[in-house]
Amino acid sequence: MVQFSQSAQAMRSSEIRRLMQLAADPSIISFAGGMPANSLFPIETLDEIWGGLSREEKQVAMQYGPTTGFPALIDSLKTYLRSKGLPVDDQGLIITTGAQQAINLLSKVMLDPGDVVVTENPSFIGALAAFLSYLARIESAPLDNDGIVISQLEKVLDAHASKIKILYLNPCFQNPAGIIYSVERKKALLDLLAGRNLCLLEDDPYSELYFNETDRRLTVPLKAMGKEPVPFCYAGSFAKIFGPGLRLGWLLGPKDIIDKCELAKQSMDACSSTFTQVIANDYLRRKGKLPGYLQSVRTAYARRAGAMLDALETHMPDKVTWTRPKGGFYIWVTMPEAIDATKVFNEAIKKRAAFVIGSAFDPGGTKNNCFRLAFSHTAEGSIAEGVKIIADAISCFL
Amino acid sequence: MVQFSQSAQAMRSSEIRRLMQLAADPSIISFAGGMPANSLFPIETLDEIWGGLSREEKQVAMQYGPTTGFPALIDSLKTYLRSKGLPVDDQGLIITTGAQQAINLLSKVMLDPGDVVVTENPSFIGALAAFLSYLARIESAPLDNDGIVISQLEKVLDAHASKIKILYLNPCFQNPAGIIYSVERKKALLDLLAGRNLCLLEDDPYSELYFNETDRRLTVPLKAMGKEPVPFCYAGSFAKIFGPGLRLGWLLGPKDIIDKCELAKQSMDACSSTFTQVIANDYLRRKGKLPGYLQSVRTAYARRAGAMLDALETHMPDKVTWTRPKGGFYIWVTMPEAIDATKVFNEAIKKRAAFVIGSAFDPGGTKNNCFRLAFSHTAEGSIAEGVKIIADAISCFL
Repeated sequence: MVQFSQSAQAMRSSEIRRLMQLAADPSIISFAGGMPANSLFPIETLDEIWGGLSREEKQVAMQYGPTTGFPALIDSLKTYLRSKGLPVDDQGLIITTGAQQAINLLSKVMLDPGDVVVTENPSFIGALAAFLSYLARIESAPLDNDGIVISQLEKVLDAHASKIKILYLNPCFQNPAGIIYSVERKKALLDLLAGRNLCLLEDDPYSELYFNETDRRLTVPLKAMGKEPVPFCYAGSFAKIFGPGLRLGWLLGPKDIIDKCELAKQSMDACSSTFTQVIANDYLRRKGKLPGYLQSVRTAYARRAGAMLDALETHMPDKVTWTRPKGGFYIWVTMPEAIDATKVFNEAIKKRAAFVIGSAFDPGGTKNNCFRLAFSHTAEGSIAEGVKIIADAISCFL
Repeated sequence: MVQFSQSAQAMRSSEIRRLMQLAADPSIISFAGGMPANSLFPIETLDEIWGGLSREEKQVAMQYGPTTGFPALIDSLKTYLRSKGLPVDDQGLIITTGAQQAINLLSKVMLDPGDVVVTENPSFIGALAAFLSYLARIESAPLDNDGIVISQLEKVLDAHASKIKILYLNPCFQNPAGIIYSVERKKALLDLLAGRNLCLLEDDPYSELYFNETDRRLTVPLKAMGKEPVPFCYAGSFAKIFGPGLRLGWLLGPKDIIDKCELAKQSMDACSSTFTQVIANDYLRRKGKLPGYLQSVRTAYARRAGAMLDALETHMPDKVTWTRPKGGFYIWVTMPEAIDATKVFNEAIKKRAAFVIGSAFDPGGTKNNCFRLAFSHTAEGSIAEGVKIIADAISCFL
């Protein structure tokens, strides 16, 4: 009889996993996975990059690299982060195996069992899983259309002050809610944090994916706003600006924190793939490739979001509401309190459409009258059909 | 003031890291890093693989994949593992971000603070770091030329029986000692484990790298010996059969354990690089590529080992002893008790040669009259010169 650790016993499993496996059937119109569209990956650029590498560069790509990251990529990434207004020169920076590892590393170096992490509600399932795996307690404050509700957050911060280690936020095209924080909300948040004893983890994988140039000003990271009332750690990823299959992200933050993350990473996977780091570095250095690619995916995702919003407007019953994203991958749908998203899922999957149930994103794992639709991975022409199937499934329970 | 977790406080740092950074200077003849030789990576094969992938396969390579691994790679890896005599069909198998992550995942799902892990002494630094990061206590038994000393291991297993969760062994071309377990020692070990309550973690990155075909029979994994008196988990890696830069390894073991590892991995990095998994899968499926490559590297590493053994014979002072590897990357050198490897390192580095000091591999972090030489990464022509520098440095302290 194997006796698992308390951490393993605390990991949530089964139900979400089972539903995700159902949704992975290619015959299903799936709005489940938070994935970029395969058809949008810049394959020509990849071929150019591979073709341009020397034998020596390919040999380096096959070798171990430093735990903090491939040095040339660290440099090119710093240039990119500076262009987003982020402080870089007095900070530590570590390349991670996806932004998921950035969240996990910070958890590893900050959290003892029983420590509190404060999140948005709803929040990113991968982050919740990481915090729970370190036996943290999760407390949360709700979101409205302008970001986390400050008065509610204040209550949570005051109530658990001595035990809070991390405040985890995803202010830009939030996963799963799809909202973006207003400038005013961000300022109020900075004011609220003054004098607190915690670390802010800002997760920012989607900020390049704004639909309208006029909304770009909203995508400025908290860490780029010029004041850090508490230590700010900024996690980002190549997943949405190049491809998740590279498994490359980063964590930017105070040097003492990143130094500890380096030690943790040594024992976690020693280094991220040098192979994909060499490719990502070349990509960042090819003038115009990243801006051109981003321009093309912004347009494509904006069209998909538009198609989904139109379909929701056309097909959803009256008492159902949803968010109207200005970028990113997601729309968050709220049904009347009494309707259970798992039942709706089970109905919708019969007609071959799928989404992720709301309880996956609830820090408590229970609230389930909502669900997440990802419009990013579904061909524009199938979106209306999938939404209609889901709307009809909801109607069965009204 | 950031307050780090107990785990972060337990992570060892500084001294080894500083020495490794010194050893990374390319003007130094370094026997420090346990790395394959850059010149031996199969770059032509890589180019063929990339050139043979369809646009759709490249798109898949850029996307997220299942947490357990890219399905086609799981299949081709199973074929490979079966060819090594390993039980596969009734087992769980998960692709990991290097074998380091396999060790870390098992630690995460098995270890609570204060639990005991039993290791060889000396043992692999990356494994020790993983166990310590979960606040485990490490107990160890010494090695001789035929493997772990059974009588000593028995004492340790008996003394800590109720607290032991993992027995971690690296029976084949052990890192750092370079020895291989005899068949008799492996049988005695299986007998000793009967009726114990622990999990065996067999770490096997080097078994393909035997120098003589006649020694192949020694490389049979414990997990392939047909009896598992306790649950056996088998960690392996593409690092030494293809390239570490891919960051791909695996863990093969009982299904309930691998299921828990999958949950842990979801929150650790979600999945390993699909990009490099697509490439590794293609590599395994190209008939003859892997066997041909292994044949060529076996010859190359055997020559390097021979050059190093010759140089040791020629240059080392009388009271110094060393192991005679039948494969792998390493030779373990033992000096008289009174000599401190760090002092020898500091002397040798002045003349531009380097190695890893013994205390890095001591579970207690102290014993330091030994050091590890890796012959794998150094051009054959430089090996004698480097060994002479180190021998001269030792002579300063005799």
